[in-house]
Amino acid sequence: MEQMKPDVDVYRRRLLAVGAGGAAAGLAGWSPASFAQAAGAKPLPPFAAFKDASRLIVHSSKTLETRRDAFGTSGITDTDILFARNNLETPDASVTANPDVWEIEIDGVTNPRKLNVGDLKRMGLATVSTVLQCSGNGRGFFAHKTSGSQWKVGAAGNTLWSGVPMKALVEELGGVRGGMRYMTSTGGETIPPGLDPKSVMVERSVPWTAMEEAILAWELNGRPIPLAHGGPLRMIIPGYYGVNNVKYVKRVAFTVEETNAHIQSAGYRVRPIGEKGAPTQPSMWEMNLKSFITHPAGDSAPVRAGLVQVHGVAFSGGSPVNAVEVSIDGGKNWHAARFIGPNLGRYAWRDFVLPVRLAPGSYVITSRAIADDGEVQPELRVENHRGYGHNGWRDHAVKVAVS
Amino acid sequence: MEQMKPDVDVYRRRLLAVGAGGAAAGLAGWSPASFAQAAGAKPLPPFAAFKDASRLIVHSSKTLETRRDAFGTSGITDTDILFARNNLETPDASVTANPDVWEIEIDGVTNPRKLNVGDLKRMGLATVSTVLQCSGNGRGFFAHKTSGSQWKVGAAGNTLWSGVPMKALVEELGGVRGGMRYMTSTGGETIPPGLDPKSVMVERSVPWTAMEEAILAWELNGRPIPLAHGGPLRMIIPGYYGVNNVKYVKRVAFTVEETNAHIQSAGYRVRPIGEKGAPTQPSMWEMNLKSFITHPAGDSAPVRAGLVQVHGVAFSGGSPVNAVEVSIDGGKNWHAARFIGPNLGRYAWRDFVLPVRLAPGSYVITSRAIADDGEVQPELRVENHRGYGHNGWRDHAVKVAVS
Repeated sequence: MEQMKPDVDVYRRRLLAVGAGGAAAGLAGWSPASFAQAAGAKPLPPFAAFKDASRLIVHSSKTLETRRDAFGTSGITDTDILFARNNLETPDASVTANPDVWEIEIDGVTNPRKLNVGDLKRMGLATVSTVLQCSGNGRGFFAHKTSGSQWKVGAAGNTLWSGVPMKALVEELGGVRGGMRYMTSTGGETIPPGLDPKSVMVERSVPWTAMEEAILAWELNGRPIPLAHGGPLRMIIPGYYGVNNVKYVKRVAFTVEETNAHIQSAGYRVRPIGEKGAPTQPSMWEMNLKSFITHPAGDSAPVRAGLVQVHGVAFSGGSPVNAVEVSIDGGKNWHAARFIGPNLGRYAWRDFVLPVRLAPGSYVITSRAIADDGEVQPELRVENHRGYGHNGWRDHAVKVAVS
Repeated sequence: MEQMKPDVDVYRRRLLAVGAGGAAAGLAGWSPASFAQAAGAKPLPPFAAFKDASRLIVHSSKTLETRRDAFGTSGITDTDILFARNNLETPDASVTANPDVWEIEIDGVTNPRKLNVGDLKRMGLATVSTVLQCSGNGRGFFAHKTSGSQWKVGAAGNTLWSGVPMKALVEELGGVRGGMRYMTSTGGETIPPGLDPKSVMVERSVPWTAMEEAILAWELNGRPIPLAHGGPLRMIIPGYYGVNNVKYVKRVAFTVEETNAHIQSAGYRVRPIGEKGAPTQPSMWEMNLKSFITHPAGDSAPVRAGLVQVHGVAFSGGSPVNAVEVSIDGGKNWHAARFIGPNLGRYAWRDFVLPVRLAPGSYVITSRAIADDGEVQPELRVENHRGYGHNGWRDHAVKVAVS
């Protein structure tokens, strides 16, 4: 969590120590990601030990990024390569041993109630596909010194979730009480002793209307949600940035005000560089319109001349993606790409492809998504203190050498 | 492979040995599946070591079935719980180390050519969702003594595949030569020495028009196809039974006649009980209309009375599924179920749900799919020697005790 006091990252220190004893390369251009790759040492933290290290960039013990060249074109991001980013220490693995006994409190409804996952499974069932994306995805492209993980494109993935619709649950409990304006979800992590809970707890408020499409999910990509991704129970708000999809959710309350937890009041707020976070600034809720190229990935071996299938992904938390254009000359000319694979719904991402015949030379390949309402993915990032919400197509371009 | 001579299953013998030293239960009702479950010992064969043993039934070293209660409701079957069934010894794992160098021969086209996967990736790109199902799925419900794995419902899964469309590939090679009636795919397994290759090789012919939707796939569910599922390259014919989706495919030829390999000429033929397989009998090509309940799973703990979300999956290789009905009284009365989750296309399966309020008692819960063309999933199986193509809803019912 941003500005979290106890975030002394022993793991990152270990990586640094390994680096010092390894290659004598200067640390000027150092970043945890590039270093871990350079050293070929990408140890996975225990909570994510099941993942495929060869397709991930390990930033720290709490932050794993999917490599750009690992996404594939299936539409869904396999759980074994899905990014992970935890704000607090992951709860003990025992909580996922029997998901059905995990309890959650529902408040701000006519008949508040404590229920367990076993109860929820009886109350309703829905499946939704949504992009899960960290608010800071693309932070690594900002020029000013932003704190937080230096994600490039891979703090995002497309996922399938099954659970009970919040709407069905709320109806069963007599409806939302009058005057409530927010839906506030609280994570079940243990608060480190000696700290003010409000300063570190994961508690997020979203406009209460998000309830219409939200689900309390116990399944990710066809299996019980693993601990690394918030199992046994996670709040899923399709189209909203990752942080709102509260893991290990133990309470959902409809509230008059937003929570005053630091992660809501000061964290995840978009503001000018140098300013402190405050409740008056925009919160990281709905995801903006975005796309990026996944092949060629740019940083791999040179591409052989001839026909190449340029592909990538496009998504939006607002007006759905309607079309994608690709440029191979850094944005001078644009060509309509074609969608491939099934349409998984408005909050899912869509794979697109453009076959192009490339002669030897250098190319700057990028994409821009166009939404139903006519909005076009912008060229430039919106400069902001914490490097949130980057969807500028220029920074997301890949430089490709064709020989 | 059926009637395959060298199929001395050391693995099954080991299970038996373990059993003899363990519980003193009689072997009368013994089957590898029930035994493995009873003993709690379900060791995975090496080629499938990455899978989740707790959600699989291990029939033999070449046959793994997904448990009915493991499917979930996400639409896609996670690779870690997907059934596996190999006809010959799995090739050495080294073949998936660098998928791009795997070679395939394309014949029966104007310009026959040998290509590697790296070449194919440049020639076209498509993603398709299809049910992958063993021809013998449901064999365990037949009353006559059928040889082969005693699958119940779990030799099936819904999957996403990415690869090059056969159509694009064939166009690039000048089109299919005149007079060709079949598309014949050959697997790259090593033939055990001393055997007539035709007696054991995996080589399957399908009507050449299947080319229209077929892809040569290198990706399954968002990752390079693992060895267990045919990587580095697999022929995928959406809507066709598993055996036609040839693994480790090393040759695709358009041919005038069907291959005379045993697996085609005598194997996978539907015929009366007691008859030998012959080329004149129907081959296991397009999958029939089918559905089954995944929850309640029937063989687990009794269900508590009250509201229950009954759910399952429905699919067809022919006219697409249009609706599903559920019965809780063994087929006397039927209720319209509702589809959930994204529609992944006509060859994918669709999750359906019916919320029902169950009082204490015994229930026989089953489902029947209805296709666009009006066809209704039948009540009874078609009796046949090898127990192929079972889609009768009566046998697929679950018996549920509600208390």
